[in-house]
Amino acid sequence: MKSLLLFLLLCSTILPFAVEGAIRRYKWEVKYEYKSPDCFKKLVLTINGRSPGPTIKAQQNDTIIIELTNHMLTENVAIHWHGIRQIGTPWFDGTEGVTQCPIQPGEIFVYRFVVDRPGTYLYHAHYGMQREAGLYGMIHVGLPDGELEPYYYDYDRSIVLTDWYHKSAAQQATGLASIPFVWVGEPQSILIQGRGRFNCSTPGLESGLCNATQPECSPHVLTVVPNKTYRLRIGSLTSLAALSFEIEGHNLTVVEADGHNVEPFVVKNLFIYSGETYSVLVKADQDPKRNYWTSVKVVSRDSNTPNGLAIFNYYPNHPRRAPPTIPPVGPGWNDVAPRVAQSQATLALKGYIHPPPQTSDRVIVMLNTQNNVNGFRRWSVNNVSFTHPYTPYLIALKENLLGFSQVEPPSGYKADYDIFVVQNNTNATTSNGIHRLEFNSTVDIVLQNANTMNVNNSETHPWHLHGHDFWVLGYGAGKFDVNIDPKKYNLVNPIMKNTVAVHPYGWTALRFRADNPGVWAFHCHIESHFFMGMGVVFEEGIEKVGKLPSSIMGCGAAKFNRRP
Amino acid sequence: MKSLLLFLLLCSTILPFAVEGAIRRYKWEVKYEYKSPDCFKKLVLTINGRSPGPTIKAQQNDTIIIELTNHMLTENVAIHWHGIRQIGTPWFDGTEGVTQCPIQPGEIFVYRFVVDRPGTYLYHAHYGMQREAGLYGMIHVGLPDGELEPYYYDYDRSIVLTDWYHKSAAQQATGLASIPFVWVGEPQSILIQGRGRFNCSTPGLESGLCNATQPECSPHVLTVVPNKTYRLRIGSLTSLAALSFEIEGHNLTVVEADGHNVEPFVVKNLFIYSGETYSVLVKADQDPKRNYWTSVKVVSRDSNTPNGLAIFNYYPNHPRRAPPTIPPVGPGWNDVAPRVAQSQATLALKGYIHPPPQTSDRVIVMLNTQNNVNGFRRWSVNNVSFTHPYTPYLIALKENLLGFSQVEPPSGYKADYDIFVVQNNTNATTSNGIHRLEFNSTVDIVLQNANTMNVNNSETHPWHLHGHDFWVLGYGAGKFDVNIDPKKYNLVNPIMKNTVAVHPYGWTALRFRADNPGVWAFHCHIESHFFMGMGVVFEEGIEKVGKLPSSIMGCGAAKFNRRP
Repeated sequence: MKSLLLFLLLCSTILPFAVEGAIRRYKWEVKYEYKSPDCFKKLVLTINGRSPGPTIKAQQNDTIIIELTNHMLTENVAIHWHGIRQIGTPWFDGTEGVTQCPIQPGEIFVYRFVVDRPGTYLYHAHYGMQREAGLYGMIHVGLPDGELEPYYYDYDRSIVLTDWYHKSAAQQATGLASIPFVWVGEPQSILIQGRGRFNCSTPGLESGLCNATQPECSPHVLTVVPNKTYRLRIGSLTSLAALSFEIEGHNLTVVEADGHNVEPFVVKNLFIYSGETYSVLVKADQDPKRNYWTSVKVVSRDSNTPNGLAIFNYYPNHPRRAPPTIPPVGPGWNDVAPRVAQSQATLALKGYIHPPPQTSDRVIVMLNTQNNVNGFRRWSVNNVSFTHPYTPYLIALKENLLGFSQVEPPSGYKADYDIFVVQNNTNATTSNGIHRLEFNSTVDIVLQNANTMNVNNSETHPWHLHGHDFWVLGYGAGKFDVNIDPKKYNLVNPIMKNTVAVHPYGWTALRFRADNPGVWAFHCHIESHFFMGMGVVFEEGIEKVGKLPSSIMGCGAAKFNRRP
Repeated sequence: MKSLLLFLLLCSTILPFAVEGAIRRYKWEVKYEYKSPDCFKKLVLTINGRSPGPTIKAQQNDTIIIELTNHMLTENVAIHWHGIRQIGTPWFDGTEGVTQCPIQPGEIFVYRFVVDRPGTYLYHAHYGMQREAGLYGMIHVGLPDGELEPYYYDYDRSIVLTDWYHKSAAQQATGLASIPFVWVGEPQSILIQGRGRFNCSTPGLESGLCNATQPECSPHVLTVVPNKTYRLRIGSLTSLAALSFEIEGHNLTVVEADGHNVEPFVVKNLFIYSGETYSVLVKADQDPKRNYWTSVKVVSRDSNTPNGLAIFNYYPNHPRRAPPTIPPVGPGWNDVAPRVAQSQATLALKGYIHPPPQTSDRVIVMLNTQNNVNGFRRWSVNNVSFTHPYTPYLIALKENLLGFSQVEPPSGYKADYDIFVVQNNTNATTSNGIHRLEFNSTVDIVLQNANTMNVNNSETHPWHLHGHDFWVLGYGAGKFDVNIDPKKYNLVNPIMKNTVAVHPYGWTALRFRADNPGVWAFHCHIESHFFMGMGVVFEEGIEKVGKLPSSIMGCGAAKFNRRP
């Protein structure tokens, strides 16, 4: 009786805290294993033996604790929690060189952060080019108990997409950093929830590595019950490819983008860029006597990568039963208009609009170009190609160490630059200098695309901002006009995102509040583009950052920084 | 006139120090590059763009300063100076996990040590399995000016041998650490001074990687002048293979082994094991109108690796002119007797004998076995399979950190153990415990070979001791008898070495003085065997070790150990 009373007393004391957010603990063992995700056997970087890694499922305001052990033999690691703003914990953003030192072999590193908003997020390695080795996964954050999404669905499912290369990350990085430059080429496969299918009859393969009967590369199956509605969370963590996702014969109603509710719109195929997440509603309203193809196609590049295929399985059909139809071929790779149209259709849901500041304090225009710098092929912003420092900025700034250029990169480019032709950009340089933003100021970024070093070629770049969401104020074709284009900004119901596409020969305008004390990367989410320098770093409110945990230190000038 | 006087004054002041030993500085940039050492293109770990790395050429008592920059993207590194005892500098032995933390990407690490004895030594990566990625080279230490070797030669030349795999070190290590176990197999090629020749017509190769016309894989050429005598320094840093080295039609007179003068003996072919160095004298006394083959064959394993070939070029014949003969096939792979005979013939040169202590203070018998431990295939010593700690022993012991097992591994094995049959060894375990030796004590090690996990199979293991040379007291067939065999020890003129072979089903007895304060690895020099646990660690005189440099710290429990 006494213990019952004590129990009730404890419950009444504890419950209010429990409602504030649970603590969710994970133990992750990171190591290389041989896997055959597309039937071709190669080393894959796994979490607890899996790639993609386990999905983190939490509720808003939960605290996530990941105890990560690096079991690799000679490689370090770091993991970024993509879309999580890390308010109050900028040191756990997981961005090597920016917010932490890499985690050494044998080391146990504890990430601890709050997921403060519902929505669909991602995680992945953020060190060297390890992400493409297979270290990635999803984060689902649900609403607190009793709260409802502004749309109805029966079941919640998810799919993470990536592209897949047979060369190792080290092989790719070595080629990219070589003279002459060796491009990574198009991916061998598209993986849907970690499963793809490379053609093992492709000539020139090393024998014994490709096995079409390998169960690991049987297609992903999503089983649905007829007439039920599914919320499908889709995330892309491709290394290179922009994708078009479709489910044969089914409409997709877009309701969420990067954790924000979207004014619903219907598409046959969803365009998705690396670093983005969407939720779409799919109703199993087609002929239930058969299965359907899920088909994922590379767009924006003239790629020879075959479409990724999965099975949209109507219960009780056999999940492995192939649909009787030819998989949809998807849209033309070079048809830009529907991609821009989807971007422009993605607007904040009425009732869930975060009104943007109507003016900004600062505008940074970022010209995206491909350059040669000292004989190396690079990507640059305003002719400055980003290089990683060895002392992470957060530590360097907070602990008053040096270790990076104190020259701020330019906030614009020459007015007479012709974005439609190949440019020599002979003044291009490399730097690890950063932008220092006034705390709480409102910053506009205009990402300006241009011609690459090949004639009549401009690529799509998905830019991802750490530590913030931004308002997407507008997209435009051609060269941004500072006098005219800002007047067309959507200041009424812009969507907030953390990753946004810059379309070929176009511009994209963003606005964000520099209100999150820390140091934050902003970069093209194409793995090789960031490696080649396509990024910048922002500092804001460094003086407001709390005491850094010692666990993030141990490299560069912070090698022997000990916390008492 | 004044400045001339000052110059002479300075000279007279500086010269005495210069005689004590020069300072030789090197700047090494370590990174991955694509290379085709055997015509097959793969990532190779290079020093200043080269593999093998530059030969360090010094004179006795010189100080070597290597400023190493790790340019790898995600991998750490450490380099061991093989055969250099590091007296007074145990922290620069370069053995990750034993004497230092690994060197992180972007880090500049300075090795500084004295080469206190003349002879032929080696260097190589000592982290994970990076050695076999190509990070290795030679160290030549000459006598001080005016001193002469006890043998005559006209020219001094060198050749470093290795075996070569097309898989990466990470691929191999992952297989070795997998359940089921995946063995690395026989090497694809033998490299002579970094050059080999893989058959590009081998079926099943990935297309585009093997190019027989690639200049990097043209054979190594050693050009000789007729009737001149050459000192040929030969070192082996194979991952796996025991080798037989011969120069068609020429006698080899062995004069040096692991830095010690040998009572000369003549061989047609020299057996050399991983980690060993020899100097042989070769007189160019054959028909000078043609070239001759240098042929290197795998012995001790039934290997399908083709012989490595180089050209022994008589000037002025064209160096690329193929010899008119078929290359020598070399000795039978399983003919153990001549290998044991060479081991036994290798004795200290009269006048250069270091007399061994006539008794020892301690005997450690080390039974070498292959085991399964928790389902993993391992190698063990007395049924304990070595695992690396993450806090290097030297730091852990000197700074009173913990971080490894305080249980000393066994000093012997059960008397009734049958070395001739496959054993289950069900009591095998893994441990990172070490042997703590009384300072200045004399220690005998008896390395006892046994049957592997395959019937009628016993392998050759080259054991390498860090920080010391040992006297080789004897070799024997079968099981060592503690009552009888020590009576046969050679206590008169044993050679001193740092690496010695244990022959199949045989034993090898060593003696050394534990007189070098520090912590020292002793292990099978086969890369995969050490990785699988075939090693032990000795501590001696830790209390006499000076203040550790902070540069070796920064990992494990020493992650935040800062030197004031």
